Amino acid sequence: MTQIKNIGLFTSGGDAPGMNAAIRAVVRSAYYYGIEVTGIRRGYEGMINGELFSMDRKSVANIIQRGGTILKTARSEQFRTPEGRKLAYDQLKRHGIDALVAIGGDGTFTGARIFGNEFDIPVIGLPGTIDNDLAGTDFTIGYDTAINTVIDAVDKIRDTAESHDRVFIIEVMGRDSGLIALRTGIASGAEAIVIPETETNIGALCERLEKGRKDKLSKIVMVAEGDDAGGAFEIGRQVKERFPHYDTRVSILGHIQRGGRPSCMDRVLASRMGVAAVEALRDGHRNEMIGIIHNEITYTPFEHACKHVEEINPNLLKIVEILSI
Amino acid sequence: MTQIKNIGLFTSGGDAPGMNAAIRAVVRSAYYYGIEVTGIRRGYEGMINGELFSMDRKSVANIIQRGGTILKTARSEQFRTPEGRKLAYDQLKRHGIDALVAIGGDGTFTGARIFGNEFDIPVIGLPGTIDNDLAGTDFTIGYDTAINTVIDAVDKIRDTAESHDRVFIIEVMGRDSGLIALRTGIASGAEAIVIPETETNIGALCERLEKGRKDKLSKIVMVAEGDDAGGAFEIGRQVKERFPHYDTRVSILGHIQRGGRPSCMDRVLASRMGVAAVEALRDGHRNEMIGIIHNEITYTPFEHACKHVEEINPNLLKIVEILSI
Amino acid sequence: MTQIKNIGLFTSGGDAPGMNAAIRAVVRSAYYYGIEVTGIRRGYEGMINGELFSMDRKSVANIIQRGGTILKTARSEQFRTPEGRKLAYDQLKRHGIDALVAIGGDGTFTGARIFGNEFDIPVIGLPGTIDNDLAGTDFTIGYDTAINTVIDAVDKIRDTAESHDRVFIIEVMGRDSGLIALRTGIASGAEAIVIPETETNIGALCERLEKGRKDKLSKIVMVAEGDDAGGAFEIGRQVKERFPHYDTRVSILGHIQRGGRPSCMDRVLASRMGVAAVEALRDGHRNEMIGIIHNEITYTPFEHACKHVEEINPNLLKIVEILSI
Amino acid sequence: MTQIKNIGLFTSGGDAPGMNAAIRAVVRSAYYYGIEVTGIRRGYEGMINGELFSMDRKSVANIIQRGGTILKTARSEQFRTPEGRKLAYDQLKRHGIDALVAIGGDGTFTGARIFGNEFDIPVIGLPGTIDNDLAGTDFTIGYDTAINTVIDAVDKIRDTAESHDRVFIIEVMGRDSGLIALRTGIASGAEAIVIPETETNIGALCERLEKGRKDKLSKIVMVAEGDDAGGAFEIGRQVKERFPHYDTRVSILGHIQRGGRPSCMDRVLASRMGVAAVEALRDGHRNEMIGIIHNEITYTPFEHACKHVEEINPNLLKIVEILSI
Repeated sequence: MTQIKNIGLFTSGGDAPGMNAAIRAVVRSAYYYGIEVTGIRRGYEGMINGELFSMDRKSVANIIQRGGTILKTARSEQFRTPEGRKLAYDQLKRHGIDALVAIGGDGTFTGARIFGNEFDIPVIGLPGTIDNDLAGTDFTIGYDTAINTVIDAVDKIRDTAESHDRVFIIEVMGRDSGLIALRTGIASGAEAIVIPETETNIGALCERLEKGRKDKLSKIVMVAEGDDAGGAFEIGRQVKERFPHYDTRVSILGHIQRGGRPSCMDRVLASRMGVAAVEALRDGHRNEMIGIIHNEITYTPFEHACKHVEEINPNLLKIVEILSI
Repeated sequence: MTQIKNIGLFTSGGDAPGMNAAIRAVVRSAYYYGIEVTGIRRGYEGMINGELFSMDRKSVANIIQRGGTILKTARSEQFRTPEGRKLAYDQLKRHGIDALVAIGGDGTFTGARIFGNEFDIPVIGLPGTIDNDLAGTDFTIGYDTAINTVIDAVDKIRDTAESHDRVFIIEVMGRDSGLIALRTGIASGAEAIVIPETETNIGALCERLEKGRKDKLSKIVMVAEGDDAGGAFEIGRQVKERFPHYDTRVSILGHIQRGGRPSCMDRVLASRMGVAAVEALRDGHRNEMIGIIHNEITYTPFEHACKHVEEINPNLLKIVEILSI
Repeated sequence: MTQIKNIGLFTSGGDAPGMNAAIRAVVRSAYYYGIEVTGIRRGYEGMINGELFSMDRKSVANIIQRGGTILKTARSEQFRTPEGRKLAYDQLKRHGIDALVAIGGDGTFTGARIFGNEFDIPVIGLPGTIDNDLAGTDFTIGYDTAINTVIDAVDKIRDTAESHDRVFIIEVMGRDSGLIALRTGIASGAEAIVIPETETNIGALCERLEKGRKDKLSKIVMVAEGDDAGGAFEIGRQVKERFPHYDTRVSILGHIQRGGRPSCMDRVLASRMGVAAVEALRDGHRNEMIGIIHNEITYTPFEHACKHVEEINPNLLKIVEILSI
Repeated sequence: MTQIKNIGLFTSGGDAPGMNAAIRAVVRSAYYYGIEVTGIRRGYEGMINGELFSMDRKSVANIIQRGGTILKTARSEQFRTPEGRKLAYDQLKRHGIDALVAIGGDGTFTGARIFGNEFDIPVIGLPGTIDNDLAGTDFTIGYDTAINTVIDAVDKIRDTAESHDRVFIIEVMGRDSGLIALRTGIASGAEAIVIPETETNIGALCERLEKGRKDKLSKIVMVAEGDDAGGAFEIGRQVKERFPHYDTRVSILGHIQRGGRPSCMDRVLASRMGVAAVEALRDGHRNEMIGIIHNEITYTPFEHACKHVEEINPNLLKIVEILSI
């Protein structure tokens, strides 16, 4: 049992729904185990600038249902330099912080890994990103909420698509991964899904759209922003070029996908992981990311918790083909 | 009491939430008064092409809560010509239709007015558009749902804006009118609102943004798509130009604003208007749009029910200034 | 122009969505006009106990979208006594408060009227109640959100009702008024509506249910809690008694109707009224409730702003009959 | 490869969100594999009464997002008798049905098991129930939507609870299982959770409530309807008895928990399982329930797919204790 006195807690990278539930869980469980928590605003940037403040149970009251992160988040150029990290470490010492919990994604853990190697301070990470693209956990905090936000939007667009017999090219988040596009495409009955993991063939896409039109004129095409064919606008342009008679529209869902009240699954996931982070520090874990795999808590060293483009389950791609006929 | 035997019912122009509730109300009340209803698909285009079918009570079961329009909608070039309108009239006669109910906006009623003058058939219009820009009614069907959809989206964006201290330029619908931007801007606590009814001064906008930053870095600017300054992307570009240090983002809400389950107010509005349309035809009304003003049913001749850019209530603009400080 | 230096602000009676938007508007507009605001927790009870605290712009940041009231609310027996009111007045003097803004319903304004007559302090009221049962305004803050919450719930129940061919007796709020039941009944396509304003005849209700079953077995009956026939359980009991072969279920929506994110209309209503309250005090108004009638700000003396059971619009009742066939 | 020509498809037992997505997936994938589908209304009852109809791709258009089941569901006494099952089998033969897909829960599979043993017809089951209480799958269709519906409701009730400093005893579904209460309790920050899997000690519950009141007066207690202490009303009664000074309220969420648009996870789960059911029949599977365990399709014989009260994860109970302090 390692004696931890004061945990520094921060969020970093893109915000994700459920981060507040994780913050609450870390603060409450630390209190339960007699450990103090110091909140750090704006991630590594705030750590360097000394935006630190003491948190208690009440600082996390009534936040479990709120999107975003009350600790705010930011990118930090300074932290990429040894000087910056030294400044950060000095701030932590000044505030008596002897352990860190970092909530974020790939970039957050890269910073944590370097920092944890340079200085003698245990760091535990929680996967907070809507992209669900991290090795070491079945789900990341925010993913389930984001895909529900997407299908709410697509259900609305479908109303208009069917009323006007339109073809909608809808772009969702996913720079390197088609996970969001694939899941939400299946869930919203999309006629086609365009993702970076598979080579995009506009010709085949157009054939597919044309074939189905004898039964139904309105179509939904889900596009991951990082697709090799170049995003929804470019795909829409090419579809219009081939089929000028289609009433083709493009919709970029954009930033609404990051916000909103977290889903039940994300709140439970974040709550479990937050408690596990504090218990991991007490048990002497360091420089690992908490995950949940097959419903069990897991610990993945930061060097392996980096972003990994999971192979897309071919069965899911086949399901799209089967169900969209 | 005019003897009406068979009402032709159609939707035209952009779809709006609540159109299905209006369709249901027309069909059910016609049945109540012993009048048949013939559904016409795809508006004037379907009228010309003979996409007509008989409707009964069951054809409108379980649609009151659905967005879009089960009758579909389309634009029609052909109907702009005397020949096209003659073809349409012949189709109506062939199906024994002796009255029309048209659900749509400005363009729909222009067509109805011309048609009603050329041929001896009474036409009653229902205001179905999210823009709420028609003379002769306090509210159009779809407006209340659309503004609720907008604030749901802005609440989500606000989560991200605050977490990252970002300035968001959000574009909402409104080619000629700032009504949606103004109402939703007040309702989502926007720091500034940019609408076509008022001359847009980017300099003043930037001063306003800069002034408030001592208290809060994140800002929401609501922009009506038809603003004279040129939409959210252009305004975002100019803000970035002046304040490169801002983390400025642009979000176009787009098509999600047209869809979704109608709000309670829109369902009641559509239901009342649908019943009033059938009763108006029985009472001998013709070539008028049904409206509700101060909670009373009104009848406005089509020539006056055209789109009118209402003067923006200056008190509302002042409220934005007062509350965003 | 009356010189107001410090406004005491409180909420009282049942909470309603939009109260926070009104609180925000009062605080921000007071700041705009150079007036201080003192928050009073738990209504009259907190006024007596001295639960007062100074509010500034930041105390109302990020609350416009939140349900409930950050000032909390409570009933106060003590305030019904002259001694209690004297204690309250002394607290106000002690904190330099020279005006009050009270957000609540009928009971709140009764207390305000008596207090405003006993002591020389101007009081302005804002109508905050989901019941929409106050004279002097078209809508009260919270009503629009509540009816949307109800139809969301009924849409869900309808899914189950149709899948099982069930008859659902659904009770909604409304002790003295059927406004919520009537509006939401129309909006959710209820087959029958049972409200206190009309004498309830179970025999007629059952005939109505039986008649429609040849077309559709599932039914929705909306009941206002204050109905003379005795609420949903009693009505359900009598329906089961007459028609044991029906699969009859009772659902009491209850407390979910008070909460939730306020609708766009409620946020705008609350924002306008909050600003109007501060401006009214500056203009020398006292002991009046702010209202909005036909989109114009109105001022109603507290003695007339009491609960009044508006006559139900007979056209709306007829619409239920017409549309549920 | 077994040659299947015509699949009989039905839903049975309580409806669950996502059943329509599963129906769609079965019909579409059967079409893909050149198999006909006959829809059977009202489960086993409709099978006996011959409520059968042919389904094609269009019969399942635009239903993936709808709650309930378009095939309706019912309980059947007749099917419990050999004579009833013989009548059912004759109907299937008469319509040339040579395989069945049954969507439902424990009772549905018991009937399927008996039927599959008595007659030579392969039956595949899909787990459709909000209770998530079946062996052989990580999740049942409808569970994820139901827990999200519950937390939406509790978030609303929390607004009121905090505004009035009330103690709310909230009853959720779960006759034999506390899974819904436990997950939603964690997700909504409940102060206590009362479930059938653990012996309920009102004394300990009251101590817990009393202890926390020095920090916060409002409390949420989640109760599974099947708890040994006797449901929310009884628990509320006992809490009031001990603490008359609490403002204690009881809320039964009831039937809203079954309805609503399915979540993304439920739509994907139902789509995958629907396709797997058709492929299982082609591969010669019979009398098994499709499940998904650790993201892989599994096949569980009906005799093992019965309701099983999973042991509650003690870590989750501890999390409630830790986080509610």
